[in-house]
Order: sequence, then C-alpha cells, then structure tokens
Amino acid sequence: MIIIMQSGATTKQIASVVTRIKELGYGAHLSEGQERTIIGVVGEDRVLMEGEEFTLLDGVERTMRVTSPYKLASRDFHPANTLVPLNGSVVGDIKLTLIAGPCSVENRTQMLETAHAVKEAGATALRGGAYKPRSSPYSFQGLGEEGLELLAEAREATGLPIVTEVMDPALVPLVCKYADVLQIGARNMQNYTLLNAVGESQHTVLLKRGLMSTMEELLMSAEYILAHGNNRIMLCERGIRTFETYTRNTFDINAIPVLKLKTHLPILADPSHATGKREYVAAASKAAIAAGADGLIIEVHCNPEKALSDGAQSLRPEQFAKLVTDLRRIAEAVDRTL
Amino acid sequence: MIIIMQSGATTKQIASVVTRIKELGYGAHLSEGQERTIIGVVGEDRVLMEGEEFTLLDGVERTMRVTSPYKLASRDFHPANTLVPLNGSVVGDIKLTLIAGPCSVENRTQMLETAHAVKEAGATALRGGAYKPRSSPYSFQGLGEEGLELLAEAREATGLPIVTEVMDPALVPLVCKYADVLQIGARNMQNYTLLNAVGESQHTVLLKRGLMSTMEELLMSAEYILAHGNNRIMLCERGIRTFETYTRNTFDINAIPVLKLKTHLPILADPSHATGKREYVAAASKAAIAAGADGLIIEVHCNPEKALSDGAQSLRPEQFAKLVTDLRRIAEAVDRTL
Amino acid sequence: MIIIMQSGATTKQIASVVTRIKELGYGAHLSEGQERTIIGVVGEDRVLMEGEEFTLLDGVERTMRVTSPYKLASRDFHPANTLVPLNGSVVGDIKLTLIAGPCSVENRTQMLETAHAVKEAGATALRGGAYKPRSSPYSFQGLGEEGLELLAEAREATGLPIVTEVMDPALVPLVCKYADVLQIGARNMQNYTLLNAVGESQHTVLLKRGLMSTMEELLMSAEYILAHGNNRIMLCERGIRTFETYTRNTFDINAIPVLKLKTHLPILADPSHATGKREYVAAASKAAIAAGADGLIIEVHCNPEKALSDGAQSLRPEQFAKLVTDLRRIAEAVDRTL
Amino acid sequence: MIIIMQSGATTKQIASVVTRIKELGYGAHLSEGQERTIIGVVGEDRVLMEGEEFTLLDGVERTMRVTSPYKLASRDFHPANTLVPLNGSVVGDIKLTLIAGPCSVENRTQMLETAHAVKEAGATALRGGAYKPRSSPYSFQGLGEEGLELLAEAREATGLPIVTEVMDPALVPLVCKYADVLQIGARNMQNYTLLNAVGESQHTVLLKRGLMSTMEELLMSAEYILAHGNNRIMLCERGIRTFETYTRNTFDINAIPVLKLKTHLPILADPSHATGKREYVAAASKAAIAAGADGLIIEVHCNPEKALSDGAQSLRPEQFAKLVTDLRRIAEAVDRTL
Repeated sequence: MIIIMQSGATTKQIASVVTRIKELGYGAHLSEGQERTIIGVVGEDRVLMEGEEFTLLDGVERTMRVTSPYKLASRDFHPANTLVPLNGSVVGDIKLTLIAGPCSVENRTQMLETAHAVKEAGATALRGGAYKPRSSPYSFQGLGEEGLELLAEAREATGLPIVTEVMDPALVPLVCKYADVLQIGARNMQNYTLLNAVGESQHTVLLKRGLMSTMEELLMSAEYILAHGNNRIMLCERGIRTFETYTRNTFDINAIPVLKLKTHLPILADPSHATGKREYVAAASKAAIAAGADGLIIEVHCNPEKALSDGAQSLRPEQFAKLVTDLRRIAEAVDRTL
Repeated sequence: MIIIMQSGATTKQIASVVTRIKELGYGAHLSEGQERTIIGVVGEDRVLMEGEEFTLLDGVERTMRVTSPYKLASRDFHPANTLVPLNGSVVGDIKLTLIAGPCSVENRTQMLETAHAVKEAGATALRGGAYKPRSSPYSFQGLGEEGLELLAEAREATGLPIVTEVMDPALVPLVCKYADVLQIGARNMQNYTLLNAVGESQHTVLLKRGLMSTMEELLMSAEYILAHGNNRIMLCERGIRTFETYTRNTFDINAIPVLKLKTHLPILADPSHATGKREYVAAASKAAIAAGADGLIIEVHCNPEKALSDGAQSLRPEQFAKLVTDLRRIAEAVDRTL
Repeated sequence: MIIIMQSGATTKQIASVVTRIKELGYGAHLSEGQERTIIGVVGEDRVLMEGEEFTLLDGVERTMRVTSPYKLASRDFHPANTLVPLNGSVVGDIKLTLIAGPCSVENRTQMLETAHAVKEAGATALRGGAYKPRSSPYSFQGLGEEGLELLAEAREATGLPIVTEVMDPALVPLVCKYADVLQIGARNMQNYTLLNAVGESQHTVLLKRGLMSTMEELLMSAEYILAHGNNRIMLCERGIRTFETYTRNTFDINAIPVLKLKTHLPILADPSHATGKREYVAAASKAAIAAGADGLIIEVHCNPEKALSDGAQSLRPEQFAKLVTDLRRIAEAVDRTL
Repeated sequence: MIIIMQSGATTKQIASVVTRIKELGYGAHLSEGQERTIIGVVGEDRVLMEGEEFTLLDGVERTMRVTSPYKLASRDFHPANTLVPLNGSVVGDIKLTLIAGPCSVENRTQMLETAHAVKEAGATALRGGAYKPRSSPYSFQGLGEEGLELLAEAREATGLPIVTEVMDPALVPLVCKYADVLQIGARNMQNYTLLNAVGESQHTVLLKRGLMSTMEELLMSAEYILAHGNNRIMLCERGIRTFETYTRNTFDINAIPVLKLKTHLPILADPSHATGKREYVAAASKAAIAAGADGLIIEVHCNPEKALSDGAQSLRPEQFAKLVTDLRRIAEAVDRTL
C-alpha cells in the first residue's frame, strides 16, 4: 500500500498517518518528492486492500495498492500450472478439454441423443443445465433433480463426465451426488454463500466470469474457493457486457493470455455465450484455442429451433463435428492436441 | 413479438414460420414491405420473450419484442403508486424516506451511538450490515446473528425500523425475525434462489440494482418477488459500473424518472455507493431528490477513519445532519417533505 | 511517478532503473518494502505521464502516476472559479446560465420563433446547429453558413448570444464571425486539430465531454485549449455510453461535483442528450442544478414532430417555460438564481 | 421502419400516424395485435433512420428500424469481398496483410532500421506515425512532414508501402503525396470533415474503429467514405473501452466474424492497441488470424524502452520475427497464407 499525501500536507498530518500505520502493526517508509510526500506501508497489505482506513485521514490524497488482492490464485504463489483431474483425463494439460451439450436438460431423448452425438464428434465432457437461472420468472427454470438423473444416465451411456450448474447453496450436496463438475454461473460469480459451499464440498468447480466482472474479481472469487483448500477449479471466460449490440456479449479474448499469466488455474472459454449467435461460434472457438485456452464449453442441441433456452447460440451436432475437425488444426498450430 | 424475414425470404419460408407460430398457439399477421416481409405474432408473448424459437427458422433475419417482459412490476398493469408501509410511515408517498446508518454493524457502542445520531438528524430508518458480501475472503465478513441482535437493540432504543442485508436463502427466516426490511444487495440482484426466498417470506424488501444490470433486469428481478404475491418492495439505484475511474460507480440518475414512469414501486437512491466518496454524497443526494426519488439510503459512521468497511464513503453524523437540512430545501422545491 | 519493482527484482535491475531516471533529469527515491522495492521519481512528471519508458526495463512490474496529467485546468493551479463572460452576463457565477434552442437551424421562421420563445421563458443564450455531425451521410447535415446567418439574425432580434458547433478546423474563423460561443461536440472532444484551432482563436468555447471519455480526458482536452492562453471555456456533461438501453445515454451526474472539485472551469449539463427522451429532460435538469451545475443547455423546438434532428429529445416552448419555473425553485434551494 | 402504437392508442391517433407516413411519401401497413397496433412503413427507410418523426406523435410508443442504416458498406449490396490493391499485393485475399513498424517516426536511424527488420521478418507494409493524436498537449506530437519524408525514404529502401495517420483534413493532400494508405485513427472515426476529405482523395484508407464505437457506427463511417465513390477501405478492430483494467483496451474479437458477415470490406486487427501490453500481443495476433482477420497491424520498435510513444505495447524485431513464424502455422490452419 502506498499513501499519497496532498501537495500541501503538513508535517503534523504526515506524522499522524505514520502513527496510524504503526497502530495497525505495519512499518512506514517516507519518500519526500518535490510536490508531495509518499508513504509506503511496509508489511503484508492484503487485508488493507482498499486503503480506506487512510483516505479519510487529514492530508491524504489517495492510496494505491501494490500487491494483488488474491494470493492462493496467484501464479507468484503457485508457479506451476494446476492440473485438474476429470474422469481419467486432465484439464490444463497439452490435450484440450472439450465440454459440449445442450443449455438445458429437456427430456431423456434429447439428452441421450445429444450426449452420443457430442461424444462421437470428440467431446471430452457433457454439459446440461438442470437448474436454470432465468431473468424471467415465466421462463423454463429447468427439470431439477429429474434433470440430474437424466445427466447421470447420459454419463452411464457415454462415459462422459457431467458438468452442470448449481445455484442454491442448499442443493450443493445433491448436485455433487450426480455431477462431476459443479458450474458456478456468471450471475453467481459473487454469490459468496455459494462459493463457500462449493469450496467446502471439495468437488471440482467450473467458475464462470460474471458478465460485468473484472478479471481481478474472478480471481478473488476463485480465492474464496481456494481458501477452503479446494483447488480443483477451472476458470471460464464467457463474454462481458459492453455497449456493442451486434452480439449478445463481448468475448474478452485478452482474458485468456492475461489469466494464463496471472494464475495457475486452467482457463476455458465459452464461445456460445461470448457471441450469443450460432454463426459466430466457430470463429470465437478457433480464436480461443489460438490464444491459449485450455478448452471450450460449447452449446450443442439436436433441434435448436425447439430448444427451451439458448437455441440461437446452439450448434447442431453436425456443425459441432465440423468445428472439432477445424479446431484440431488450430490446436496443432499451437502445439496442443484435441 | 415481431419477426423480420430476410430480404430474399421465399413464400415457403414465410409459410413455415406462420405454421410454427400457430403450433405455439398464437396468431400470425403478415405485413409485406418493399424489401421484406414482417410477421406479427398475435397473443400474449411474455413467454416467447427472447424469440429464439424463430430466429433459427430458415429465412428469418431477427425478432423484436413488442411488450415489456415484466407484467406485475409494470405501471400499465398497476397504474397507481404502490405505497410500502414501514413502521407507521409509508415509502412512496409525499414524505421522503431517509435510511441511514453504518455499512457494517461493528459493535454495540458504534451501533447505538450512530442510531441515536441519525435519528436525531432526521432519519426514518436505520441501516447496518450483519452479513457482508466482500470481494475478498480475507476482509471482515460481518458479525452475523450478533449483528442482528445489536440492530434490534438499536431499534428498541430509537424506534427506527431496521434495514439489513440477507445473502443466504437459508438465513431468510432468521433475518426476518430481526429486520423490518430485507435488503438484497447489488451482487445478488439475480440470485434467483434468494429472490424466491424473500418473495415467499412476504417480508418487506429493498432490492438494489446490480452494478451490471439494466433497469429492465431490475424490474424482472422485482417480478420474481411479485410473483410470490409480495408487493412490499422498494427499488434502489446505487450506481452502475462504467469506464469512469474518478468515482467508484456511475450514479445513473436517469433511472429515477425512468423507473417512476415504468413501474408503480417506490424508488430510493444510494448516493454513498453511487459515488463511493464522501465528498460527493451531498451533491448526489440533492440530485436524487430533485429528480424525484422517494428516498435515500446513506452510510453514516461515527468514526469513518476506523470503519471496518466503506469508511471512505461514510458521512460523519454532523455532516449527515447538515445534509438533511439542505435536503429539506430541495424536497420543498419539488413539493415533497422530509 | 512511482515505479513498482517486481517482488524478485535484483539490485542490479533497481540500479539500472535509477540510472535511467537520472538520465531523464529527475531524482530517484528508493523505498524498500517487505515484498518489493518502490522507486519514487522526484521532479515534475507531467511529460512522463504514461511511464512507459520504465515499464519495459527489466525487473519493473508497473508504474503509477501521482500527479494529475493536466495542470492549467486544475484547481490546484488556479483555486478560484474561472468566470466566463457571455454577452454582459457571466458563466460560473451565482446566476445560472440557460442555453436553449433547436438541435439544428432549419429555416428562418423556426429559428426566430424559437429564439423569441426561449428568450421569453428565461433563456440567457441561444443554441442551434448550422454544421451537424450525423452518423449517417444520408441524414440532414445542417444549413452551413446560411444557418449561421439565421442565428445572427435571431441574436439581433432577441439579444441572446449564440452557441453553435464547429467541426472543421478550417471553418473556425468563419464560425467566429457569427457565433459568441464555439461548441466542440462530443464526437470531436479528442479532435486535437480542432482543439488547437479553437484555442488559437481566443474565442469562448463550450467543450462537451465525449460519450465514452473519462472526466480526466475531458480535462486534458480543456488543457489543449488552455495551452493556447484561451481560458474562456465552459465544460459540459452530456451523458456517457453504457450498457443501459432505456435511455439514449447515461447522465453521469457525479461529473458535476467531481469537476467542480477538480477544475476551476464552469460546468454545464445537457439533459437533452444525457437522457435522449423528452419525458426525462425535466428530472435530469433539476438534478443537474441540485448537484451544483453552473447552467444547462436544453433542446427546444416549436414543432418537435417535424424537427430534422433530435425531435424526440426536444421540449416544446411551453414545456420549457414550465421547466424554467420549476428550476427557479431548485436554484433557490441551492443558493443560486436563474 | 416499424411503428409500435401504445396499447390504448385510439383509431384517430392511428389514422394520424398513417397520414404523416403518407405525407413523407411512404406506404403504411397496419397490423392489429391483441394488445396493440403495429404500423409498417413501406418504402426505403434509410433517411428515416431514427424514426424520431414518429415517436412524438400522439399514441406512438416507439419505433424500430428494420433495415441497416448503411448500404454501400453492406454485403447485401455487394456480396463479393472487396479486394484492396496495395503495392502489387492485395488486401482481403487468401494471403494475409501484415503491417508493422513503430508507433511514431522518431528519427532516420530508428525508421530505417525498423523498416529493414520488419521487412526481413515478413511484413508486407510499414506503419509509422508522423502526426500523433496525444491526449496530453505536453506529449510528443510527431515529426510532421519530416516524418513523412523519412517514411518515404524507408519505402524507397525496402519496397514496403507506407501506412500513416492523417488527423487534419487540410493535410490530406500532403499526406497523400507520401503515403500509400491514409490511416484514420480511433479518435477520429466520427470526424466527418476528415472522412469526407479522405473519401474525396480517392486514396486507400485504413479506418480504425473508435474505442467507443459500435460496429454499426464503424460501418456508417465507412459509408461516408464510400459515398464519395472511394471503396479502397480496410477496416480495423483495435480494441474498445470497457470496465476491465488489466489491459489497456478490450479486444472485441467477435468483431472479426461479425464484420466479415455484414460487410464486403477487408478487416484487419491491431493487437498492439487491443491489448496495450507487449506480453499479450502474440496471443491476440493468433486469435485474430484464427477468427478470420485479413491481416494485422503491429507495433514494432528497435528499442521500445526509449520509444517516444507506446513503448509498452511494442514488440522488439526478434519478437516480431518469432511471432510471424507462429502466425504462419495458424494461417495454414485456416487455409490462408502469410
């Protein structure tokens, strides 16, 4: 933490900031510039993160954080890539992870048919929502436990591990019974009750970036889970909200290399939500792999025209199969496999 | 819902969209323009909200919603202002509501001292957080039930009703035992499990706009609560996230007149979060009342330099008292009282 | 400027940063923290603004600016309010400035009729565009010099000084011949060729904030004009671009108190563009005055249904007259006059 | 254009909207829904783009545009890719375009050394700024015509065509004398005086997306140039402004496939500005090519630590050479060459 004094700050004001720093158990280091004095707070400053204690003292202009507010999620703390085991394979390794399936579990036929199709095309895991966060109370809210049972049946039939969203902290134990990976959706990225619950569960987690959350906030949310000793976490960039209207979200492709540098956790991309339109999913998928993503999560539906949610951004199985073929070429061009 | 066909759409494609509309139980009305055909879907289209069923049919260019996606929250549906009773007074009436108090409940002395101070200055309700959503797991997370007990004691001492945040659906019954108003914080605006829980509780709710949420999404979240027959809701504009860095958030003052027009629910403003800096709270408070807000929720702390959270945006009691005096003049200038 | 070294930076790396600082003619001040070393650059650092010279040196993590990048625009440099003379009155004083008129000059009747109407209602200056920046080349682009002549005629008839936009640096001398105030529109806030031209002209300038520009960038653009010795500048907040769709722009009301604190230049608000819809102009105008704005610029049209531009956000003269009456009450409540 | 009437609109109100439509020379087509009447405006509606003429008529709720506001830029109007000739090669073809060079022209040695280095590494054109738009009046503003002469000399020495920015409409003829491609920078994307000047020049243009502009606005700015009969235009995505702070801008990778679909003009990407940090330029470059970009414009500097602008985002020549090798593999994976 650095404390920048106002240009006319008095000696007494400076002394009283120093006193306060020492009261809090830290050291103070003064640097007297031509225009103003700057005070460095020496010691671990993670708990002082916002520096609010100081901005209100007389003569203080503002404060600036020097260290990152997350620790366990940081690559400084854990330099090697974290590899997350997933049903015999590993997320974060040379071989890319490819999660595919419908937005919502709708019925047995739809689920099994899609599961077989994505497996055949090359998917390594199956997605499907049993509990759906919908902005309207009048929209389809998911099949609930029946959906989880259908997902388990699809896993039985195909061998693909299951990724599904959990929204209610009270349902974490139930969802853990069925799912291989608990998905935390974008709207719940800062639902701390839920983050604590999945952290405690020690289950594998797919943590999606909020649609208006910074990368730093994403890492802070991962820190909540890591603080419970659970490091089986994959992060997921899924598009952020901006002023652009031609796409549903803006795919922040920069997040891929930035997060690879800042954290040891694997990073997936969700090109379906990041674009919101089927016609752009292939380009966004290729871009993500080229930028260094560890995998993708893609919406695939056997009959998108009749999907109960997100039809417009879902690929048909044959489109997905074609995309996997194209992605293999990109993967090789960046020394990965698929 | 309006469906816009591509400029070269064939008669067969148009016919097949019409067939699909009828399958779903609606009427279809064709309008043939010079460049393209437009099809109106006749009937209630709230469940068709996104129109995704149609965008994937051959020949369709895009769809546009005509009616708003919310109904119970809409002023069309309920033209008169909803008045929310609060401890003998009423929110949404001529007399403004003024909620004040610390960000977090920290200890008995702080709470009682602040409660008396804001009461004396003219506050009509007391705020204080017992459960705090913090972006860092290492920050102070609130006193929990002990905090609720201190709030109840402060109500006993001052007669001010209590507003406090609930984050965990499982704790809704407990918080209801102590609080007069359940606050849903910005990060939880789309936590549907929580919205359903407070809806069912039939308790009075203060619903804050998410920092990444449109006004329409705020109204959709209110709709979740209203759908449980609970209309004791006050909305709250508390600043949105933009690219601007001189303030913590951007206070969307437009939201006041827009929401007054679109919905019958009362609208408060939170100038403390909307600016993030104490020196701008007075100007933002005056602006909110001048724009037609039904009240304010303001952070006040007896010793902001030592606050455990949000000190930088908290007013001292004497600053709050001065502000109330200034706000009375603005209130009169817009035919309200305080 | 503060330079933050990486946590593992070597003594040699630190020494070489210090050497570079001295080469550039500044002093260096080291502060050795527990985790890392921080180096203060002592001396005027306005020209080092971005600190890029240092971020690429080995061992440097990042740099942080300490002083603001603007100087002449800063209240530190010029503590008293700058008062801008305008046709006998003064902008930035107790008495508020009220500029009103149509978006575009369309014809003689429209211009004269509107000029008389706004004068009678209480306006202190007349606006009207002769050169219009339109996003489509197919939209009405303004009457050009004929429009300037009509504005001059309206001034002659009413005594109101004229505010009109200039877009082309080559036309600055021509527009100066007719206009009392040169308006720099939002799209041209960072058109440096134009800023230099109006700076050199020594003419009074109304500088509008870009729709996605920070307040700091607005002040930097003012600095361009001030650097030519021209301090006859009024700033104008006119709404920024965000994700919200119910309004054309988001009125950043915070900008009023923030700019009043940071700069000595007067601040106006443009509630017409900041909302984009006539029904919200009154609330936004009241909010601006309550927040401390020095005046308003409002679109008024005698026949908005037939306006060639911005009809939807224009008030009719009788609506404007009613608003002025309401604004007088707000002005008094904040110790101003209108 | 579609006009949506309010739910309670009267027959008289509907009739009067129809009358107004006919007065303007269009046809009207009524569609009476259960809740409300919708009126289609039949005929070319590009000039009616905003629909403001109608929103103010009694009983109208809102209007919606059906056709895009641009025509000449649209792929509907010109289905085949436009190929822009550039010094013997072609932009928009199978072979990718690779423009590289320093942010600013600083001196003869720097320019020639960099030109030879990028040529050798595989660049197909040379960039360098002689006129620099800087947010501070105290920053280096470019060498002006001397810079243009150095660029011409570098072309002479290497055979690489020259891309350089023009900011002042009055300087377009001068810059045309030296440059092969006129760059319109992000801050000038809606400087219509300048767009008209480069349109008239019939010179090749590189049009960068504004950091605050939608893709539609970018296409409208291209339309300004196309309206002068000049179709030698390359568009360039260079990052937009969002709330994210870990990168200088947010690279809108979605813009690549969206623009390829909407327009016939070639699309380049600028990974240097889109990330703002050298360490992310390689990942962003690969992503752009994988997503279908027709080329890249990359900042390369022989001594970035001493660059007068944008050093932090510039690659060293050897980093650029390594990147070109990596990009060749991506190019092949998407059936392009480099």
